[in-house]
Parts: sequence; structure tokens; C-alpha cells
Amino acid sequence: MTDKICAVIGIGPGNGAALARRFGDDHRVAMLSRSTDLSSKLAGEMAGARAYACDAADAASVTDVLAAVARDMGPVDTLVYNAGSGVFASIEDVSGDDFERAWRVNAAGLFHAAKAVIPSMKQKGAGNIVIIGATASRRGAPMTAAFAPAKAAQRSLAESMAKHLGPAGIHVALIIVDGMVDLPRTRERMPDKPDEAFIRPADLAEAAHWLTRQPRSAWSFEVEARPFVEKW
Amino acid sequence: MTDKICAVIGIGPGNGAALARRFGDDHRVAMLSRSTDLSSKLAGEMAGARAYACDAADAASVTDVLAAVARDMGPVDTLVYNAGSGVFASIEDVSGDDFERAWRVNAAGLFHAAKAVIPSMKQKGAGNIVIIGATASRRGAPMTAAFAPAKAAQRSLAESMAKHLGPAGIHVALIIVDGMVDLPRTRERMPDKPDEAFIRPADLAEAAHWLTRQPRSAWSFEVEARPFVEKW
Amino acid sequence: MTDKICAVIGIGPGNGAALARRFGDDHRVAMLSRSTDLSSKLAGEMAGARAYACDAADAASVTDVLAAVARDMGPVDTLVYNAGSGVFASIEDVSGDDFERAWRVNAAGLFHAAKAVIPSMKQKGAGNIVIIGATASRRGAPMTAAFAPAKAAQRSLAESMAKHLGPAGIHVALIIVDGMVDLPRTRERMPDKPDEAFIRPADLAEAAHWLTRQPRSAWSFEVEARPFVEKW
Amino acid sequence: MTDKICAVIGIGPGNGAALARRFGDDHRVAMLSRSTDLSSKLAGEMAGARAYACDAADAASVTDVLAAVARDMGPVDTLVYNAGSGVFASIEDVSGDDFERAWRVNAAGLFHAAKAVIPSMKQKGAGNIVIIGATASRRGAPMTAAFAPAKAAQRSLAESMAKHLGPAGIHVALIIVDGMVDLPRTRERMPDKPDEAFIRPADLAEAAHWLTRQPRSAWSFEVEARPFVEKW
Repeated sequence: MTDKICAVIGIGPGNGAALARRFGDDHRVAMLSRSTDLSSKLAGEMAGARAYACDAADAASVTDVLAAVARDMGPVDTLVYNAGSGVFASIEDVSGDDFERAWRVNAAGLFHAAKAVIPSMKQKGAGNIVIIGATASRRGAPMTAAFAPAKAAQRSLAESMAKHLGPAGIHVALIIVDGMVDLPRTRERMPDKPDEAFIRPADLAEAAHWLTRQPRSAWSFEVEARPFVEKW
Repeated sequence: MTDKICAVIGIGPGNGAALARRFGDDHRVAMLSRSTDLSSKLAGEMAGARAYACDAADAASVTDVLAAVARDMGPVDTLVYNAGSGVFASIEDVSGDDFERAWRVNAAGLFHAAKAVIPSMKQKGAGNIVIIGATASRRGAPMTAAFAPAKAAQRSLAESMAKHLGPAGIHVALIIVDGMVDLPRTRERMPDKPDEAFIRPADLAEAAHWLTRQPRSAWSFEVEARPFVEKW
Repeated sequence: MTDKICAVIGIGPGNGAALARRFGDDHRVAMLSRSTDLSSKLAGEMAGARAYACDAADAASVTDVLAAVARDMGPVDTLVYNAGSGVFASIEDVSGDDFERAWRVNAAGLFHAAKAVIPSMKQKGAGNIVIIGATASRRGAPMTAAFAPAKAAQRSLAESMAKHLGPAGIHVALIIVDGMVDLPRTRERMPDKPDEAFIRPADLAEAAHWLTRQPRSAWSFEVEARPFVEKW
Repeated sequence: MTDKICAVIGIGPGNGAALARRFGDDHRVAMLSRSTDLSSKLAGEMAGARAYACDAADAASVTDVLAAVARDMGPVDTLVYNAGSGVFASIEDVSGDDFERAWRVNAAGLFHAAKAVIPSMKQKGAGNIVIIGATASRRGAPMTAAFAPAKAAQRSLAESMAKHLGPAGIHVALIIVDGMVDLPRTRERMPDKPDEAFIRPADLAEAAHWLTRQPRSAWSFEVEARPFVEKW
């Protein structure tokens, strides 16, 4: 069995599960999520995988759980940050709590997770941090008063880390999800949208995995994942 | 005396004082800052001006003090958000507290301040919100792991607000400060830099004031302030 | 009478005429345009102004006419580049001639005009080059296969010049026109659009003039002009 | 033997040769370049490959040669646009001919090549256009008065095409080359730069090939290729 360790933070039935499965092909995977209902089930199906309860919005939880992962499984080679949150409302309708929670889950959680895994990556002179971002990170829109600033902070932090950690052999990359992910709840919301208008989680996971396979003479930082029919 | 009210948040000896003075030409100015040592002195020199103690990092403080401003002086016509903070360190060296504080001062403080003044601006169908931003809002750099994400969140929030509030007659604009502001502490740090390499606070304040004078057929959202000799 | 000279390239009944008039307040204005029907009339109304026939798409014409301006009126202090063109079509429908002409008018014309005026500006250690750009310079859209690349080249050239010429005291600035300019032909095309949804040329010209008045401690490079109701 | 056809425009000893070889793994490759010295040799080593003389700066040459490719080999499934040029000089030192030639090679050549291959791709409802771009496309710098505007026009055209052609099943993608490519002439110029500071053409070619393998639920448009030690 491989001795490469991957930690995926944020395990839902869409991207999270697909990312865990794809990285499970060549890593032992630690799945971190608030509820372990799904991740425990997935862990049962994947050799060497484990599920951990972790609240990405809680700095101590992120730090402690990643320490437990390192103790239980070994130092993390690949961190996939998939935690996200999405209140869509204007500055007038969004609450201070919404604004703060979006930042905690999208930006601060990444900050604490990265700080937990960087030291062992630096020791090895290698490592991957892949972040699942969003188009909202590039610009604010009327109804993204909480979500866009949180994703913008995430993207900016990712870029700061990519520049700082690259020369140490640690590849930080960001996927800009620009479209609707194929999920039961997105299907329900848009019943008339054709299949091909949705991002398939397995395809997104393949892009994430590809980023970690890039040779270091030609790394990418920011890569979109967008259905071919998407208007942008 | 004018009955236009301007609230400036963040009063230091550089941009803050200059902004208060410039807007004092045609507004009664409320100066909000943690310490009122300087702002009280300034208030004594400006007709109709008042100084308020306010911690931009504290949501309740921002909300309460702006409510007091409205009671004492009347509804705010122009909000100038100049609160900022700048820890410069990489992801490895910056603390979780630094990361959070930068976000609180630069992004969350703006969020709460804007929410406090928007309702009366909407009632009037007019108002100005000018934010003093930074180049760091556009990209992360190795040593801006805390500062850049905070400024990116601020810029994204500003853009979300600008798009949402524009049609209601409220002009949200962002000044990208791209250079060293002329201050005793920046002069000390770079004693050999010529005068003209620093941004003069009065010039920055003039740009901020100009943004609030723009006719609404031709509003700007994002405007740089950069010394002519700056490398960029 | 002022001895400041301004050359405005591209004189139509909207922005061109408004720019000429606004800069005519404190400059003697040379108006360069293919047809001199309008510019001759304007020149008759403005003290010290002159009209010149010039095709912005023709390098020799731009170079020769600006040499004539310098001989007739003196070295140019302020160049306003307002020449533009707008074929809207996809890659499939736009012709090679359209693609080339858009580049000639928007990008190459600016290149040759700038080269003509830079030497005397450098000698004085001062000067202004203001370019009337467009949102299309920031991104390509399906129907801007000719226009967007031309405006992107213009913006990129403007940025290269701004960085190179700034330290020599020459201020290069770009206005991003993001909306419909108020013109008989735009009004006809959108008869139901309210007045306030159009950019008033006089307001745009004021922004251009303001850019040339900025003190050099706080120059802007890129500034939008957008109606407050615009969706963006 | 595969019946997939790939046309690579711009064949030098670095990226061009590597791209031809990589796409040669699963395509019959048409190599288009001004000189056929290298491409003829490569064609001799690759099953089904052919070399064509073509000047990317000449619209008729591009159009005619791609028509010949279609006649000789069949309709093009994948177009790789690698033609480029790089005069580095400021607005003061670059000539009008340099400015025009950079645009012809980088932007107009892509325009004409795309127009030549799009009709048959649309008929199939599938196709790939991969463009080898550069960081200069994102911003102008003092010494890129010719190169940056040409690359900006190229990037803008690529984006316009990507948005227009995506729904027709044609994937347009852009690689931002952000670093020095490993070539005899770049090695000579920087003899002290370590191996790992150069982009290996084979790694860049792999990224280009990967873009053409992306499932259409998760396409990328813009992807950087950057050595891990690069400062950016």
C-alpha cells in the first residue's frame, strides 16, 4: 500500500467524496468534515482511509485534527482544501455572523490547515496544497457580499502561500470552480438544465489530482473548471 | 454651516487626518479612531467636527458609534473607511491572531460600518462610501499572508457593495494606495528616499474627495494613488 | 491666452467634442480626426484651437500631423487619445480586415501618437497622455473578437508606457468607459433607456481633465467611467 | 495509425518540437514554421507527420497552408498556436515595424489560423485550440511596449473564442508561460541559473496535451506554466 498521505478537508456527496476517491488511488486518505456520516462510509470502502470529525470554521479543531492525522497516519503529503460555504445575499441582507462564518470556513480554515502541514512538507522539500475555490474569488457581485470576500481572501492567501512555498518544493494550486456542481440539490434547483451543464465531481477531482502530478518545471497556480456550455 | 455629514474611520497623522481635513471643507466630520488624542485636537480646529473613540476591529463598537454619530450629528452622507493594519510576514511566521485581526480591521469593520450607514443613504437616494485600499488587495505576495487576504476581502466587499448600491444612488469607490505614504515612521524607515517618492496624504485625500464629487453618469469604482516614480 | 497645448485625436459629436471643449478651458487645442467637418466648427468656437485632418489608422498620417501641430502650435503638453472603432462580431463573422483595422485605430494609432509627443514631453520633464479605453480591454466576449483584442493591446501599451514614462514626469492614464455614451445613435438604438443610463460626454471629459490635474505624488493609471445604474 | 490531426504552428527547438512530439503520441502532426529545417527532420521521426513552410505573420500563408493541411491530412482536430516573437524595448526604442510584427505573429496569426480550422471543428462538434501565451499578456511592463500589447491581444482573442466556441464543443485554452524556457540560447544568456529554474519544453507540452484531454464538464481556459523557483 502507498505510504503517501492525503488530507481532504470538506467531505460532501459531490466534490469532497470525488476528491477523496481520486486521491485514494495513490494516497491513504484522511477525510475531515463536520459530520462523519458520509466520510466513515467512504473510509470503509477505501484502503487505508480514515474519517475524522473536524469543523473547518474552528481553528483549534483544524489544528488538533491535523495533528491527529499526522500521528495516526503520518505527515501529510497532499492537502486538499474543499471546505466552503455559500450564503448568497447583498450587504443589506447578510448578517455579520454570515460574513464571519464565510471567512472562517473559506479563508481562516485554510490558513490553519496550511500552517499544520507546512512544517513536515518543508522538511521533505515537497508537498501539495490544492484549494477548491470559486469564480467569486475574482470579483464581488451584488448577492455575494459574504461569499465573495471570503473566497477573495482564500485566493489571496493561496497566492501568498504559492509564492512563498514554491521555492521550498511545495506546490500550492487553486481551482476556480466556475459552474454548478452536479449534486442532488443543484439538480433539484435547476431541473431543466441539461446534464452537460453541470460540473461532474469526478472531473473536478481529476483536475485537482493532475495539479499534484505536474512536474516542478511547469507548475500551474490557478486553473478553472468550467462546463463547456457555461456563459462566462 | 454645511449640513452634510462625513464619518472618517481611522484617524492617524497621515491619511486619516488629511481625509478629515479635506472632507471638513464641505462636511461636518465625525472622526472615529481607537485613540482620540489626535482626533480631539483636529476636531477643535474644524467647525462642527467631533471625535469618537471606536475600535474598527470590534463590530459592536463600529455599529454603536455610528449610531451615536447619527444621533449627534445627523445621518452620514459620506463614509470614508481608512482603518487598516499591516503585519508583514509569510504564512509560516504570521499568527492566527494576526490573520484574524487584519481581516477584522480591513474587511469586517467596513462591513459593519457600511451596514450602519446604508439605510439612511438609501432613504435619501444618495451617499458616498470611499474605502482606502491597497495594492495588496489585487494579489498575494510572500510576506503578505495576513495583509493581502484582508485587503482582498475588503476590495471584494467594496465591489459587491458598489454593484448593489449604485442603482440606489450610493457611490462606493476604492482607492488603491500603491506606494509609501509620507509619515514620520515611513520617512525614518527609508531616510534616503526622495520626497517625491512618497504619497502626500493631502493628495490622496483630494482623490478621495474627487470621487465623491463625480457626477453619477460617470462614476469610478477603483482608482490608484501612486507616486510618479513608483515601480509597479 | 494659455500656452499649454492639447492634442485630441478622434473628434466625434460625443466624447471627442466634449474632451476638446473641456481641455479648451486651459489649453489651446489641436483636434485631429478623419473628417474636419465637426472639428473645424468647434475650432471656430474655441480660442486658439485648430482642426487637422488625420487618420488614426495610418501611422504616417498620425506622425506627420502631430509634427505639424508642434510646428504650428508648439510642443504638445497633453495628448488625449480618443480614436476608437467598434465592429461587434464573433471570430466566425469578423473579417481579417476588421480585426486589423480595430488594432490600427485603437492600438497602433496610440503607439505612433505617443512616439510623436514623448520627446518634447521628456525634455520638459512633464506631460499627460490620457487614453479613452473600454471595458472590453479587460476581457474578451463572444462578440468582441476584433474589438476586445484591439482594446486589450491599447490598455497593455498604455500600462507599458505609464510604467516607463512615469519617472520622467509623464502621466499616462486610461479611462475605462463602461457604459453607453449619450449620443444620437445610441439613443436611437435604445429609445427606452432612461437618460441617466447614459454616460454624459461632459462628465467623461471632466474625469479625463481631472487625471491631468492630479499631483504627481498620487497619480492614477486606470479609472472607470460608468453610469450609476450600470450592471457590471 | 490514429486519424486525429494536430497542426502545430511555430516549430523551434524548444516548445515547438516538444509540442509536436507530445501530440504526435496520438495525432498525425502537421508542423508549420517559417523554416522547415527542423520540422522536416522531426517529421521524418514521427509516423504520419508532415512539415509545411508557413509564415505566421502572413495571413494568406496561414490560411493557404492550413487549407493544404486539410487537403493532405484531413480536417484539424487540434490546433496548437506556438508562434511568438519577442522584441524587448520601451515605447521610445521600439519601432513601428516591431510593434506591428509582434501583433502579426502573436495575434493576427492566431486569428487567421483559428478561422481556418473552426468550420470543420464545428461540423464535428469537437476540437481543441491551445495557445502558448505569456505573462506579458496580463500586464504591460516598461520594456514590453511591443510584446505585451501583442500578447494581450492574443489572450483577449483567445478568451473571446473560448466563450464563443465552447458551447459548440470546441475547447480554447491558453497557457501562460511564466518563466524562461530551457533552450540553448536561454542557457547561454543565464549560465549561472540552475537547471530547475528553466521550464522544460516536454513539461509544457504535457500541460498543453492535458488541456486537450479535459472532459468537457470541467474545462480550463487559462493555465500557468511556471518553474517552482520562479519569483512572481
